[in-house]
Amino acid sequence: METNRLEAFSDGVLAIIITIMVLELKVPHGTDLGALGPLLPVFLTYVLSFLYLGIYWNNHHHLLKASRRVSAGILWANLHLLFWLSLFPFATGWMGENHFAALPTALYGVVLLMAAIAYYILQSRIVAVNGPECALALAVGRDWKGRASPLFYLAAIPLAAVSAWISCALYVAVALIWLVPDRRIERRLVADA
Amino acid sequence: METNRLEAFSDGVLAIIITIMVLELKVPHGTDLGALGPLLPVFLTYVLSFLYLGIYWNNHHHLLKASRRVSAGILWANLHLLFWLSLFPFATGWMGENHFAALPTALYGVVLLMAAIAYYILQSRIVAVNGPECALALAVGRDWKGRASPLFYLAAIPLAAVSAWISCALYVAVALIWLVPDRRIERRLVADA
Amino acid sequence: METNRLEAFSDGVLAIIITIMVLELKVPHGTDLGALGPLLPVFLTYVLSFLYLGIYWNNHHHLLKASRRVSAGILWANLHLLFWLSLFPFATGWMGENHFAALPTALYGVVLLMAAIAYYILQSRIVAVNGPECALALAVGRDWKGRASPLFYLAAIPLAAVSAWISCALYVAVALIWLVPDRRIERRLVADA
Amino acid sequence: METNRLEAFSDGVLAIIITIMVLELKVPHGTDLGALGPLLPVFLTYVLSFLYLGIYWNNHHHLLKASRRVSAGILWANLHLLFWLSLFPFATGWMGENHFAALPTALYGVVLLMAAIAYYILQSRIVAVNGPECALALAVGRDWKGRASPLFYLAAIPLAAVSAWISCALYVAVALIWLVPDRRIERRLVADA
Repeated sequence: METNRLEAFSDGVLAIIITIMVLELKVPHGTDLGALGPLLPVFLTYVLSFLYLGIYWNNHHHLLKASRRVSAGILWANLHLLFWLSLFPFATGWMGENHFAALPTALYGVVLLMAAIAYYILQSRIVAVNGPECALALAVGRDWKGRASPLFYLAAIPLAAVSAWISCALYVAVALIWLVPDRRIERRLVADA
Repeated sequence: METNRLEAFSDGVLAIIITIMVLELKVPHGTDLGALGPLLPVFLTYVLSFLYLGIYWNNHHHLLKASRRVSAGILWANLHLLFWLSLFPFATGWMGENHFAALPTALYGVVLLMAAIAYYILQSRIVAVNGPECALALAVGRDWKGRASPLFYLAAIPLAAVSAWISCALYVAVALIWLVPDRRIERRLVADA
Repeated sequence: METNRLEAFSDGVLAIIITIMVLELKVPHGTDLGALGPLLPVFLTYVLSFLYLGIYWNNHHHLLKASRRVSAGILWANLHLLFWLSLFPFATGWMGENHFAALPTALYGVVLLMAAIAYYILQSRIVAVNGPECALALAVGRDWKGRASPLFYLAAIPLAAVSAWISCALYVAVALIWLVPDRRIERRLVADA
Repeated sequence: METNRLEAFSDGVLAIIITIMVLELKVPHGTDLGALGPLLPVFLTYVLSFLYLGIYWNNHHHLLKASRRVSAGILWANLHLLFWLSLFPFATGWMGENHFAALPTALYGVVLLMAAIAYYILQSRIVAVNGPECALALAVGRDWKGRASPLFYLAAIPLAAVSAWISCALYVAVALIWLVPDRRIERRLVADA
């Protein structure tokens, strides 16, 4: 029951964050292709952030499915995660509107990093409260990705000063790492069932 | 259980998309009828997009009712659909504020087309995971509409260069096709029950 | 099950409409009491619209509790109601920012009237699909209010040309009619139980 | 069942309020650290308000868990609470954008005070309808905090004329009071179970 409300509230916040990001795609005044040009980087960062929020929603979904009990610590760890995710529209907008300038691109990585740390804290809290069988349920193929992602962000943040494109390539790479193998595991699970 | 959270999240995103569209109806500064005049095309596109999102919500509702199992592929196919639907406020605003200029009207059709393709992918994924009895449940009277709609959009997109009114007429026609027969099927279903 | 999703989606849209209205209360640039002065009419219309949406949420809640079956007609009647409610932020903002000018005040009444008609259609659809025991459940003390409210709006709309204050007084009166007796009925129900 | 919908609607509104607040963090035009400087007070007030809304969500969660029956009075007391919470984005934005000027800081306290009173009314209504065992369930360690908080706000509001920093310190102190001991109680509860 408690898990349900935690899920519902998180879903609500995630749904709103995803949709509010699209407001940065401001309707242009012109009506030709040239009017859409300056929107392209905003659109691309929107796609990237949409992917990240989709990945977080997916993982959050699996995390709470493995959790039977909810403590105050879990509630606050969850709010902490939602806090950093709520900064996605700001970080996305700043990076997109400034066509991947150095500092906005680095800040985007900082928000990604903080969200990854917050997710890790939430996962640890859930395992601590729910015990080892929950830890087992969560260990399937996700652990190395959870550990590798912050390293990518940590590399991407200072590299934005050298070239924002390297940082962006790293952000995209992490998103793909999470996207691709999930499907492979899934297919194996479906084949086993 | 899983289907429930998928529904809840999709409902959240759809509810926000529908409501955010209305923000394009910006409060005018004047207080006479003339102040409302420029808002008329914005209002009409709002009505059209509201209808489309209502149709998507309705169909999505039926789709998930026929689905018992959820895979990672379904989760991502659903997010993919929500992505294209999230571009409705932008496409609606651009078309409405520019009084149905050629390119914005064509782009509106592109977003409709991509959403239709995304819906088709989601439906295929659900049928693949849930098996033939699910396919049967979905086959009732909806198939030809799902196949005809993209053809209408494909015709409407280039025709916007000739006349945006033809494109708009096609968009309205598709919305009506989905609206009207649904009620007829429903009445038959109620009569059978 | 179906009723649940209808409720959840309607709740989502209503929650967003209520919260989006508050965005019309734009943060002023000054920091003294004079900066808040021009916001007073916007604040008052916000309170009024908040009350109306609260009443609609309350009534919608009772309506769906009395409904066991959902048809496509009910789904669309519900979307039709949500459409008119989604125009509340626009109508509220226009009336509030123009300090109750004649036309915005009349338009506010038009939106109230259309929402009342949409609610009546939804109620009729639900009674038609769910049969007489549902009609009975809904008949408790709400019927005369549902019938009287549109008459108040119909009077208030042209009267806005004479004096917007009369119209506003009528809008407030209808809100109070819905607010006050509900509590009295409730107390009686609690006493009976 | 009724409690569920009350929770779902409240969660929706709270999720939107929390996310809409972040819109006050407007994307700056510059791309250097100096461009982020003026955003710092806006960011800090966002963090504070996020904490307060998190605390309200947490407490609201416990309150409704102790409640089995819902009356019209509870529905309206809940809407009354949501009304004051919906003013958080406005109060937060005004205080943050004006770098903690006296009047905006006092108004922030007024909104906090009104929300606290609204919460108290909701709690009283729930206890009145659900009887003594509900009162007992709610009495665990929360009572003194609920009674102390309004006193802090009442002190902070006039003190904003002397120094906004004292008021802010009081607002932060109340948030910490609610945050810290909750975890301690929880640990004891987990240890007992």
